[in-house]
Amino acid sequence: MARAVNVAIVGAGLVGSAFINSLQSLRLSSITYNVILIARSSKALVSKQYTPLPLQTWSSDLAAASSSSVLSPGDLAAYLEKSPIPVILVDNTSNEALARVYPFLLQQGVSIATPNKKAFSSEYGLWTAIFEASANLTGAAKRGLVYHESTVGAGLPVISTLKDLVATGDELVKIEGIVSGTLSYIFNEFSTIGGEEVKKFSDVVLKAKELGYTEPDPREDLNGLDVARKLTILARLSGLEVKSATSFPVQSLIPTALESVEEVSDFLAKLPEYDAETEKLRRDAAAEGKVLRFVGKVDLSDGVSERVKVGIEKYDASHPFASLKGSDNVIAFHTKRYGRNPLIVQGAGAGAEVTAMGVLADVIKIAERIAT
Amino acid sequence: MARAVNVAIVGAGLVGSAFINSLQSLRLSSITYNVILIARSSKALVSKQYTPLPLQTWSSDLAAASSSSVLSPGDLAAYLEKSPIPVILVDNTSNEALARVYPFLLQQGVSIATPNKKAFSSEYGLWTAIFEASANLTGAAKRGLVYHESTVGAGLPVISTLKDLVATGDELVKIEGIVSGTLSYIFNEFSTIGGEEVKKFSDVVLKAKELGYTEPDPREDLNGLDVARKLTILARLSGLEVKSATSFPVQSLIPTALESVEEVSDFLAKLPEYDAETEKLRRDAAAEGKVLRFVGKVDLSDGVSERVKVGIEKYDASHPFASLKGSDNVIAFHTKRYGRNPLIVQGAGAGAEVTAMGVLADVIKIAERIAT
Ligand SMILES: NC(=O)c1ccc[n+]([C@@H]2O[C@H](COP(=O)([O-])OP(=O)(O)OC[C@H]3O[C@@H](n4cnc5c(N)ncnc54)[C@H](OP(=O)(O)O)[C@@H]3O)[C@@H](O)[C@H]2O)c1
Ligand SMILES: NC(=O)c1ccc[n+]([C@@H]2O[C@H](COP(=O)([O-])OP(=O)(O)OC[C@H]3O[C@@H](n4cnc5c(N)ncnc54)[C@H](OP(=O)(O)O)[C@@H]3O)[C@@H](O)[C@H]2O)c1
Repeated sequence: MARAVNVAIVGAGLVGSAFINSLQSLRLSSITYNVILIARSSKALVSKQYTPLPLQTWSSDLAAASSSSVLSPGDLAAYLEKSPIPVILVDNTSNEALARVYPFLLQQGVSIATPNKKAFSSEYGLWTAIFEASANLTGAAKRGLVYHESTVGAGLPVISTLKDLVATGDELVKIEGIVSGTLSYIFNEFSTIGGEEVKKFSDVVLKAKELGYTEPDPREDLNGLDVARKLTILARLSGLEVKSATSFPVQSLIPTALESVEEVSDFLAKLPEYDAETEKLRRDAAAEGKVLRFVGKVDLSDGVSERVKVGIEKYDASHPFASLKGSDNVIAFHTKRYGRNPLIVQGAGAGAEVTAMGVLADVIKIAERIAT
Repeated sequence: MARAVNVAIVGAGLVGSAFINSLQSLRLSSITYNVILIARSSKALVSKQYTPLPLQTWSSDLAAASSSSVLSPGDLAAYLEKSPIPVILVDNTSNEALARVYPFLLQQGVSIATPNKKAFSSEYGLWTAIFEASANLTGAAKRGLVYHESTVGAGLPVISTLKDLVATGDELVKIEGIVSGTLSYIFNEFSTIGGEEVKKFSDVVLKAKELGYTEPDPREDLNGLDVARKLTILARLSGLEVKSATSFPVQSLIPTALESVEEVSDFLAKLPEYDAETEKLRRDAAAEGKVLRFVGKVDLSDGVSERVKVGIEKYDASHPFASLKGSDNVIAFHTKRYGRNPLIVQGAGAGAEVTAMGVLADVIKIAERIAT
C-alpha cells in the first residue's frame, strides 16, 4: 500500500500560499500528502475526520470559512495528536505563541517543518526544550521531528549543510554571512566595487522600500534584529549557548537620534540628515579598495572574545561578498576540513517561492522518515 | 532501546580510511553504527556473526587478515542480505563490478552510500535499474536506499540540492559547474584575472602533478572523462536520459597528436610542444577581459541543441567562476524559482576528508530512515 502522511498548514500568507501551490505539483513522490488543516489568523479549514481537504479550491474555501473555526494552539495540539497516521505541522506564520507549543507537539509525536524563526531564536530554554522533545537527538519512539531549513537563507542549503558538518565531526572555525536580502540589496547598491557612482544611503533605503524589498516599516530591517535571529540559530547549531538574539553585539542602522521617532514617514523624512555618517564609512572603505557589507559572524577560533556579532564589515574587492548581486544571500563556512577556502552557499535568500521550496523539501524529508 | 544499523565498508583507501576515522568520532548520534565488514581488494575483515568489529585496530587487523577472506560481489550480497538488522553498504572503491551489483543489493533491502561514480555514469540502463530497485521512488517495503552525495563535488551539497530542486517542482534552466579539482587548479593558475604573469600550460600541468593534485597519470584528468561522468549524473538527475558519459561532446585537453603516446613521462615531455594552442586561447580570452575555465554544462533552456557539454569556456572577470581559488569546485543552478541569480555552491570538491564527510552524512541520513 502507498505510504501517506497528514499535513496541517498554519499560515496561508505569501509563503503559505506558495507552499500549498508547490505541494499540489509535487513530482516523483511515492508518498501521499493529505492536507487536513489550512489556517490563517482569523479562519481555518479543518478536516474533523482527518480525510484530505480538496486543494484546488483551498483559497476560496478558506475565505468562505467561518471565523469560529480557528483553533487555539492547545486545540491544535489536541487535534493533531489524534491523527490516525503520522502528521506534519507546517508553521508558515511568524507567530511566537505557536512556536512555544513546539515542545509539547513534538512530545505528542507531531513533526514540524517551518520557516518561522521565533522558536529557534528566542530564549535558549525554548531551543533546548524543542530539541530535547524531538526525536532528532533522542531517537525516542513516537517523538516528532523538527526541520527548519528556511529559517536562514530561505531555500538555500544552509541549515542542512551546517548540521551535516557538525554531525560528521568537522570543526567549525567561523561562519560568516550576508543573510538579510534587504540589507544585501541596500549595501550592494550603496557600496560598489570601483564605487564611482555615489549614492546616498537614505536614497538607497527609499528605493529598496519602493521595490518592496523592505518590510512595510524599513526599520524592522535596519535594526538588525532579523539578522541577529538568524545568527542566533547558526550559532546554536554550532554548539554555542546563545542566550537570545539580543545577547550579543548587533549594530543598528537606525541613527540613535531617530530611535524614538514614531511614524515611518517621519523616520524616512529625517534619515537623509544622517547620510554623512554612512558616507564617511563608505569613503574610508573605498580608500582601502574595500566595500561595506552588513554581515553576521559566528567566530569559534581561539582567543576571540565576541563569538557572535552582527554589523557592518569591510571586504576586499576580490572577496566573494564584494561581488554579490541584487538581494542575494551568501554564507561561508570556514571549517577544519575545508581548510583555507570556505564552503560557500549563495543565492536568493528571501521570496515566497524559494522559502516555500525549503519548507516543502523539509516536509518531504520528514515524510520519508515517518510515513507509514 | 537504542536504534542501530550495520555498516559494511568496501574500499579502505584514502576515502575509506578517512570514513572509518570520522565514523569513530561521530557526535550527537542517537543511532549506533556497527561496522560488520571492512574490505580492500585483496583482504577483508568479516564479522560472520554480524557482531561489531573493533574499530580502534581496524588498520592492523585488516593488514593481518588472510587474503582468502575476500568476498566476491555475489558472496557480499549473500552476506549482507542475511544481516539481522538493517544494513548499509559503503562503497568507497571505484570498482565497476561492485557498482553493477547495486540493483540486486537494493532489491535485497541493502542500502548504499557511495562516492563511486561508476554506477551512476555508466550506461543508462544501470541508472534506471538502480533507481527502480531502490525504495527512493517506489516506496516499496524492504527495498534499500541509495545516496551518492560525494559523486559530484565531494562533500559539497550538490546532489542533495539538485534533488530538492527537482522534487519540490522547480524548473531547471541550466546547471554550470567546475567539478574537477585538478582542472580547477590548472585553469585558475593558467588563466588569471589581469593575467599579467604568463605561465605555460604544460608547466602548470607539471606543477599540479608535483603537488599531488592530478592522478598519477595526469591524462586521466586531462581527457575530461571524470568531468563527463559527473555531468552525466547531474544531467540524469535533471531528467535527461543521457546514454553514457561519452554520448555528448567532451573536450579533451590531450593534444590529438599525443593520444597514442604510451608512457606518462613521454607524454609530459612532449606536452610543451603544444603550448601555443592553449596560449592562443588564453590570449584571445584576455583580450576580451575574460578567463578560461574547464566547465561542464547541462542546458535545459528552449532551443538549445547540445544539452550536455564539457570543455573550455570563457568567463568575465566579474563572474563567480573567474575568481575561484585553488582547486575549489563551484556549481551554479539556474532555475525558474531562483530567477536571474543562480543558487551557487562552492568549496573544496576533492580530498579524502571532505569526500568521506559527504559519505558519512549520507550514511546518517539513510540510518535515520532505516534504523530499527
Ligand atoms: N517571505 C519571505 O521571503 C520569507 C523568507 C524567509 C522566511 N520567512 C518566514 O516565513 C513565515 C511566513 O512569512 P510570510 O511572508 O508568508 O508572511 P505573511 O504573508 O505575513 O503570512 C503570515 C501568515 O500567517 C498567518 N498567521 C499569523 N498568526 C497566525 C496564527 N496565530 N494562527 C494562524 N495563522 C496565523 C497569517 O494570517 P492572516 O492571513 O489571517 O494574516 C498569514 O496567513 C515567517 O515566519 C517569515 O519570517 C519568509
Ligand atoms: N579522493 C578523492 O578526493 C575523491 C573525491 C571524490 C570521489 N572520490 C571517489 O571515492 C572513491 C575512493 O577514492 P579513493 O581516493 O579513496 O581511492 P583509493 O585510495 O584508490 O582507494 C580505493 C580502495 O578501494 C579498494 N578496492 C578496489 N576494488 C575493490 C574491490 N573489488 N573490493 C574491495 N576493495 C576494493 C582498494 O583496495 P586496495 O587498498 O587493496 O587497493 C582501496 O582500498 C572513488 O570512487 C573515487 O572516485 C574520491
